[in-house]
Amino acid sequence: MAINKPSIPKGTRDFSPVEMSRRTYMFDTIKEVFKQCGFLPLETPAMENLSTLLGKYGDEGDKLLFKILNSGDFAAKVAPEQLSNSNALATKICEKGLRYDLTVPFARYVVQHQNEIAFPFRRYQIQPVWRADRPQKGRYREFYQCDVDIIGSKSLVNEVELVNIVEKIFSKLGIAVTLKLNNRKILYGIAESIGYADKMVDITVAIDKLDKIGLEAVNTELETKGISVEAIAKLKPILELSGTNSEKLQKLSAVIGESEVGMLGINEMSEIFSYTDALGCKLDIELDLSLARGLNYYTGAIFEVKSKDFAIGSICGGGRYDDLTGIFGMPNTSGVGISFGADRIYDVLVGLNLFPKSAALVTKAMFINFGGEEQLCALKQLAILRDNNIASELYPDVAKMKKQMEYANKREIPYVIIIGEEMSEGYATLKNMITGEQSKVKLAELSEAIAD
Amino acid sequence: MAINKPSIPKGTRDFSPVEMSRRTYMFDTIKEVFKQCGFLPLETPAMENLSTLLGKYGDEGDKLLFKILNSGDFAAKVAPEQLSNSNALATKICEKGLRYDLTVPFARYVVQHQNEIAFPFRRYQIQPVWRADRPQKGRYREFYQCDVDIIGSKSLVNEVELVNIVEKIFSKLGIAVTLKLNNRKILYGIAESIGYADKMVDITVAIDKLDKIGLEAVNTELETKGISVEAIAKLKPILELSGTNSEKLQKLSAVIGESEVGMLGINEMSEIFSYTDALGCKLDIELDLSLARGLNYYTGAIFEVKSKDFAIGSICGGGRYDDLTGIFGMPNTSGVGISFGADRIYDVLVGLNLFPKSAALVTKAMFINFGGEEQLCALKQLAILRDNNIASELYPDVAKMKKQMEYANKREIPYVIIIGEEMSEGYATLKNMITGEQSKVKLAELSEAIAD
Repeated sequence: MAINKPSIPKGTRDFSPVEMSRRTYMFDTIKEVFKQCGFLPLETPAMENLSTLLGKYGDEGDKLLFKILNSGDFAAKVAPEQLSNSNALATKICEKGLRYDLTVPFARYVVQHQNEIAFPFRRYQIQPVWRADRPQKGRYREFYQCDVDIIGSKSLVNEVELVNIVEKIFSKLGIAVTLKLNNRKILYGIAESIGYADKMVDITVAIDKLDKIGLEAVNTELETKGISVEAIAKLKPILELSGTNSEKLQKLSAVIGESEVGMLGINEMSEIFSYTDALGCKLDIELDLSLARGLNYYTGAIFEVKSKDFAIGSICGGGRYDDLTGIFGMPNTSGVGISFGADRIYDVLVGLNLFPKSAALVTKAMFINFGGEEQLCALKQLAILRDNNIASELYPDVAKMKKQMEYANKREIPYVIIIGEEMSEGYATLKNMITGEQSKVKLAELSEAIAD
Repeated sequence: MAINKPSIPKGTRDFSPVEMSRRTYMFDTIKEVFKQCGFLPLETPAMENLSTLLGKYGDEGDKLLFKILNSGDFAAKVAPEQLSNSNALATKICEKGLRYDLTVPFARYVVQHQNEIAFPFRRYQIQPVWRADRPQKGRYREFYQCDVDIIGSKSLVNEVELVNIVEKIFSKLGIAVTLKLNNRKILYGIAESIGYADKMVDITVAIDKLDKIGLEAVNTELETKGISVEAIAKLKPILELSGTNSEKLQKLSAVIGESEVGMLGINEMSEIFSYTDALGCKLDIELDLSLARGLNYYTGAIFEVKSKDFAIGSICGGGRYDDLTGIFGMPNTSGVGISFGADRIYDVLVGLNLFPKSAALVTKAMFINFGGEEQLCALKQLAILRDNNIASELYPDVAKMKKQMEYANKREIPYVIIIGEEMSEGYATLKNMITGEQSKVKLAELSEAIAD
């Protein structure tokens, strides 16, 4: 039998013990803050019905769904002429797909279980999602999202809660960040006040590029979209807004004050800022009118977080939605949520070397194995160490000392315990693998010697 | 647009916050023991190449794999005549499948990363697996496995290590269990010593039914498989073995002593028992010659764990394999592993009501929201509670007191804090939701009052 070197599908990853230890530290840090802030854990299945997923992420998103082949004799239900169209065939032979994000399954869960849930419902969810995107550096086909949402309340206190969570998590992780804030109502107000309420999307898309292509190019793009020169002139002061967040809001209200929706957005932002100020929020928060975020369901505040010291794009984002559950038959349930991009945050932590010691492998001690009576004595001591919650092991084979030491070294185990002849006197030799130091220790005092 | 009540695929489950809290307790308990015993975490992708999965679980297993449709214009590569056979069509339009267990991905990982791994490799892995089995009570299409393996060592100390882990985990969970042990070499020895080495599988399958159908029916089945009446008579004393484990082994060696392989198995079991005895293992270990375990790759000791107080079948199982990685081109690498069935263990914990208080929802306190200055004061106190690691929240809306209280009740939050007029004097009212007791507490002492 010819054997191929085994591999995994492109865009997927194995997580080695070292990576797992670091990822566990990251997830635990995030989870701890979620729990501290009163959020409840939720998990949904990896597979959802395609009827739940299709049409929720736009045409492009539909194409990126991983579809699961029906079991049994599925081919019998296909007519040959259906082979001419992959999409039509797929709907014939697949009923399930892999979760594309955590938001749609969350909305589906809320509607399905609305009678059991205590609203406002505060939930967090940390699970992998799958997208059939073209893999590239930092973009995977299987990756983790960490979502936190409060649904069933319109209060802006919830937006403040999310700002608070962003501050706490990145401060715990040691990542300096900027939180960019904007509001969909303000974006609408801008479009409305220059007379193009119907072109809000075109205007937003153009403004979004300001950083990259500059004001003139943005104006050119706006012209090609059919925005009049007059209207573009009106936009200019908005795009050039500067100053503190409250100064920006003040200037903005002078320009878009005629738009009722726009003013609602300005008032929402003022209220959010008044809270974060009063609470002494130390986060660098920036009102950024060029922030748009692609997802259609956002209706109020929108968020995006960037690392100050590591260029990798947005590492966290979210916003207020007024009708996410409407698609599943439960209208008018407002919520707000934010998603932490675990894989990018991990890359930032690696890139800036921010993992603490506690994120390392945990095994602290290894017993050398000489077999016979010494092995039995080691097994007994091992049990005591473990009862004292010291992660430890016995090298299982009676191999050469050098081989056993090399193993301990490769595993980065900090202490090696040698139980040899001194056993009869109740002693062992403890070797510190980092300093190389060796000392004679009473068997009864091994745990203390290692715990230090 | 007609809206269907949303649902999830059959055989899959949502895990509500209450279930998640309990599952987290269970997984954390298992993980803690794995880590304490020097095992390293590993995760592999949900999707594997079908070439990795196919042919590893028998024909029945192949049918139970969830296959993932290729992206892009897959239909173009299919000829109409291929529609007549679902299996042939599937291999044409699917290259990936969902993980069926954690053992094959582990073997694939070990071979793929053999140059980076320090052998003997001790790893644990806790992840969901997927099987297109017919769903029924206690059998799901998505379920979790918790695997622990030591690969790259033939030492029986590793078997003892797994016995130790079984003892620790179920004792921590409070589940009384019996560990059944047998050895594939003994099963071969039995078949050999009655003159039917080539019929080991038939004999094992028949013996496996002893508990259910009784000795006579087993004998009848053996006859229909072509085993002579003489040979069946030789089997009788083996099937009727009684006494302690070492008595059983002694009697057994008198019967199958001629079989070299059989004696190897007996000696292995003696050594394992001598260790567990010397180490004072408190687990109820039973040598059970009718234990066979279906998986073909086992070659030595085999394990199975049953709850003593809750009838649900095996909740944990595993064994020694001498050539698991051979299928991927790395022969002669012996290992031993055991898999904890999370979903059945969960059912036992629920059935016997064994969850401790710590497995409950974690949010400890909620502030009532009166809006205005009181709300701001509550937000500030909330921040202090959280800094003191008390999971807490503010009800986000200025709703009626009754509604807010009902929410806290439904969420099972033990403390409600009312910040009203006494705020100006630096006081709040703390309500214990379990006892109904109310007390006036200094704002500065809220954390202490709740932490008690």
